[in-house]
Amino acid sequence: MENKKKDFSEWYNEIIDISQLSDKRYPIKGMNVWLPYGWKAMKNIDSVVRANVDIKEFQEVSFPVLITRDMLMVEFEHIKGFENELYWVTKGGKEKLDIEMALRPTSEAAMYPMFSLWVRTHADLPLKIYQIVNVYRYETKHTRSFIRIREIHFFEAHTAHRDHKESEEQMAEYMEIWKKISSALCLPFHVDRRPEWDKFPGAVYSLAFDTALPSGRSLQIGTIHQYDDNFARNYDIKYSDESGQAVYAYQTTFGLSERLLAAIIGIHGDDTGLVFPPDVAPFQVVVIPIPSDNREQEGFVSSVCTVLTDHGFRVKLDNRDAYTPGYKFNDWEMRGVPLRIEIGGREVGEKSVTVAKRTSRGRQKIEFKELVPGISRLLHEVREEITARAAKQFLELSRRDKSVEDMRSYEGISLSGWCGNRECSDTIEKETEKVVLGINISSPGDAKCIVCGKPGKIASFSRTY
Amino acid sequence: MENKKKDFSEWYNEIIDISQLSDKRYPIKGMNVWLPYGWKAMKNIDSVVRANVDIKEFQEVSFPVLITRDMLMVEFEHIKGFENELYWVTKGGKEKLDIEMALRPTSEAAMYPMFSLWVRTHADLPLKIYQIVNVYRYETKHTRSFIRIREIHFFEAHTAHRDHKESEEQMAEYMEIWKKISSALCLPFHVDRRPEWDKFPGAVYSLAFDTALPSGRSLQIGTIHQYDDNFARNYDIKYSDESGQAVYAYQTTFGLSERLLAAIIGIHGDDTGLVFPPDVAPFQVVVIPIPSDNREQEGFVSSVCTVLTDHGFRVKLDNRDAYTPGYKFNDWEMRGVPLRIEIGGREVGEKSVTVAKRTSRGRQKIEFKELVPGISRLLHEVREEITARAAKQFLELSRRDKSVEDMRSYEGISLSGWCGNRECSDTIEKETEKVVLGINISSPGDAKCIVCGKPGKIASFSRTY
Repeated sequence: MENKKKDFSEWYNEIIDISQLSDKRYPIKGMNVWLPYGWKAMKNIDSVVRANVDIKEFQEVSFPVLITRDMLMVEFEHIKGFENELYWVTKGGKEKLDIEMALRPTSEAAMYPMFSLWVRTHADLPLKIYQIVNVYRYETKHTRSFIRIREIHFFEAHTAHRDHKESEEQMAEYMEIWKKISSALCLPFHVDRRPEWDKFPGAVYSLAFDTALPSGRSLQIGTIHQYDDNFARNYDIKYSDESGQAVYAYQTTFGLSERLLAAIIGIHGDDTGLVFPPDVAPFQVVVIPIPSDNREQEGFVSSVCTVLTDHGFRVKLDNRDAYTPGYKFNDWEMRGVPLRIEIGGREVGEKSVTVAKRTSRGRQKIEFKELVPGISRLLHEVREEITARAAKQFLELSRRDKSVEDMRSYEGISLSGWCGNRECSDTIEKETEKVVLGINISSPGDAKCIVCGKPGKIASFSRTY
Repeated sequence: MENKKKDFSEWYNEIIDISQLSDKRYPIKGMNVWLPYGWKAMKNIDSVVRANVDIKEFQEVSFPVLITRDMLMVEFEHIKGFENELYWVTKGGKEKLDIEMALRPTSEAAMYPMFSLWVRTHADLPLKIYQIVNVYRYETKHTRSFIRIREIHFFEAHTAHRDHKESEEQMAEYMEIWKKISSALCLPFHVDRRPEWDKFPGAVYSLAFDTALPSGRSLQIGTIHQYDDNFARNYDIKYSDESGQAVYAYQTTFGLSERLLAAIIGIHGDDTGLVFPPDVAPFQVVVIPIPSDNREQEGFVSSVCTVLTDHGFRVKLDNRDAYTPGYKFNDWEMRGVPLRIEIGGREVGEKSVTVAKRTSRGRQKIEFKELVPGISRLLHEVREEITARAAKQFLELSRRDKSVEDMRSYEGISLSGWCGNRECSDTIEKETEKVVLGINISSPGDAKCIVCGKPGKIASFSRTY
């Protein structure tokens, strides 16, 4: 396998192929097939997301994929932001359709006409819904699995509130939810407030969660948007308040995508292959029997698997005859399984298992009667180790740069003073190829603009995916 | 609410509206919005399906929604069967696309080019995959929620095998899987072997699972198809057998859709509203506190909910202040929750709960310490009662008819002798508006054709959805 540091891009493509996450040989470029192993990982990410929004009383819905041109045209700023990326359905059977329909690029224009029917009085608010669906972007740029593709597995939450104060509270709740999700996925990130010219079409402001891949380029892995009543005014989403007056609702959104999986692959993986956080791993534990002539082995292996499965662990028993234990060890290490259990004749005799962590060398013994707490503890350790390693790597991929020259000499995310003016960030981009991700909210600070010297704030700059 | 027997069609539309399963006011006709309650039910159906195919070692995947015209044209019979129903994407951004792409109407043409890459040797077989996705049909007929729509929530399993014998074994396994699924959903059905002119485009033969709604019309709720090597020859799916010879693979498919939910609504519902089988119910138990001045009530209610939730039951606590217990009883009965738990001052004092089943009048007491086995038992009873009621109703909606006159005077599914010739079934259709669903496999028998008098088999005839 390609060395991860030496050629990250090659390593990334290769590990996706050999670990069988997705197959990009589908005859339409940029539309890939989710293979069983990759789809399991993605569904586990979805489960983490669902658990964290369900507990905040979001309701899951599912909207149609098609949006008419009329629906899209209601919010002009919004459609303008997407018009070059829309796939258009223009024919049904052999007939030309009266009204062209787009495959959703995101669902504001699909949902808000319904919000306008659903929201009647203040008692209907807050309205908090989400869906997990595919969205479509006619990408003309170079595509890359899970990062830049044409059919994107997508999470989108949409809310409506009484006023700006409540929609701001929602923005704060999103941050709380995101902390839980990113923690389960062991992903480090900056929060950047996108500049005016790069905010979501129709939003008042957009906050992005930016991480960094080992190439030094940043990857946007989540966004939250404050709409205030921008969309409500266009889609006529009004409620009658306590005094009976009709008032526009205030709205927000929160978006995530399969880029979360890209970040997990790129950040946690190593030269041996994938490393899955326990909450995401398709299999948390792989059980590999070491051939022996102990006649109780099969029964013992089976008990180990049953006990763990019954306690909610995702367990894979690898009893393929055609492969040696050594081959299996390498195979599952490459595929990123957090824990490997080995059971040979000795383990059967001792009623114990030998466990190896994906994140460190060495093995340890766990008594059968200690199996469940033992495996829990080791999975917890793996999660901690992955988190610590990712945090350390992120620190190396992000630094304080006080001049354009320093920025240019550094591959990672530069945290530098910026006055907020586009002229200055354009100058930086021209000189360094780094674009401004926005004022850094997660490590805020005042600093003079490194271009014009005027007072400014610490902002994030990087090459991006 | 509309009387179910008197005007089933009205009743059906109304109950979907008032129980908030889906909203058909979306601006594109035939594309409806899944509301939280309906989506929960559908996801539970998906879970039942997943559990039953996963255990048979099917692997879940996810394929792109778009299929190029070239990919579709590979199997001419197949595309011919769909060509009037396809939505075509012809533009990306402002550009006309070089190659038109259809939204999948089903995924043979998407999957089999990949099968051709994946299947190499006999060791790759059997290949058993499935996906749960939306499919698209440009319906020109009258649309109806969950029954005839343009965006269809769909389950499709696809397999490849060494030979006809193994693909036939797969067909038998599908029957076994379907029995488990239909049993969890409490749905009665006939198995009909579709006539040649009505089989799936590209199939050698198609077996359909047909149930009946109270209108007397039949509803196809599932199908399995034997392809033999028809598709393999066109999509070049070949493997090298033990002797190294290249051989075409034999294939089958199994399809289900949101019609399963339609059947559950239409068959189990009554004049009070929905009746959900426990495996499908968004909430299996609703807990309704009856206001009292017992200060321990809130704590006790909370314990009941926690114990049940911890044991895997789907529980809804209805503590809305603005509604009376009576209103809540009616509301949750209408929405089909299998069990209602009432907790007032007396129950708190006795450390017990009062339980009412959706399927029968009367209430019973369960001691708190017996809560988990008690609720399990009652849910089991509800399932048995729903199954028995549906079976009885299905018997009434299906009868042996020995003449065209008898068929005409009967609303339900007629089981009648048929020689297999299209002329005779066309005659029947002209005289009775009933189409032939095919030779009945589930209650097979010999019988003379009721039109021509020649020897034949018992076949199913009905008006259909």
